Amino acid sequence: MAPSTAANSAFMSKDQFLAHWQGHRALSRRVIEAFPEDQLFSFSVGGMRPFGELAGEMLRMAAPTAEGAATGKWVEYAQPVPSTKQGLLERWDEDTKRIDAAWVKVTEERLQERDVAFGVYDDFVYRNVLYVIDNEIHHRAQGYVYLRALGVEPPPFWER
Amino acid sequence: MAPSTAANSAFMSKDQFLAHWQGHRALSRRVIEAFPEDQLFSFSVGGMRPFGELAGEMLRMAAPTAEGAATGKWVEYAQPVPSTKQGLLERWDEDTKRIDAAWVKVTEERLQERDVAFGVYDDFVYRNVLYVIDNEIHHRAQGYVYLRALGVEPPPFWER
Repeated sequence: MAPSTAANSAFMSKDQFLAHWQGHRALSRRVIEAFPEDQLFSFSVGGMRPFGELAGEMLRMAAPTAEGAATGKWVEYAQPVPSTKQGLLERWDEDTKRIDAAWVKVTEERLQERDVAFGVYDDFVYRNVLYVIDNEIHHRAQGYVYLRALGVEPPPFWER
Repeated sequence: MAPSTAANSAFMSKDQFLAHWQGHRALSRRVIEAFPEDQLFSFSVGGMRPFGELAGEMLRMAAPTAEGAATGKWVEYAQPVPSTKQGLLERWDEDTKRIDAAWVKVTEERLQERDVAFGVYDDFVYRNVLYVIDNEIHHRAQGYVYLRALGVEPPPFWER
């Protein structure tokens, strides 16, 4: 990456992005862990979904998007999402490995291609990947509010 | 940006990152707009800060970080943060221009430098910039929960 202020200067490398992504996933995992088991799939504010369901959505988006970015095949999450805290945490770790394995195969050129993710989201590949993190930060923050409302101290936001 | 799977392949360009950042800021602006004026600086859930204060934190972080990334000078936000909805929105637009102006001067090389932002945050420049967006998404999502709890439909998350 040569020094330049040109429009095509890199913001960060593909590997730096993966570390950023997995750092956020590690924080989300700590938020799942922080929930009392009996509130994870039931507690809610303002009629929104419980955090366990939001964590399930994160799982359904993350590994399939990494794999679609790598291969151009957008395959919906095959397994049912776990409905227990322990099940979510184990699946989280399995999908961490799936993401790492897929990411190795993603090229810079591929990230700049336009593609229709899951037959619906027509955008550049890097933007479809970014959306997964954005969505995770957004819904994880709902989890922070739920934890505060339950009187539970959430994990520090800045730790990854 | 040549095709490659090497560790230093780019994830996205500097200009693509700016569009991503300003897209998030445009959404945060719509969240400020969505708040009833009388709740913006008072309503809260779980003892957390009202959204107007969180928006003020977003302002204090964004333009000074873009400028520090550009110049290596980390100057705290000089003006007092507005305490009205209209004031926040006007300042938001002013800072959009400050960020755009600073970003032109940021180089790829600079983003990969380590620096101590504001004398406190010792990290690579690209990571200190990413943190500003992460923090904005995180606290904006608190705003979404507040709006739902107030019975107000928040702006669509996927629109930027």
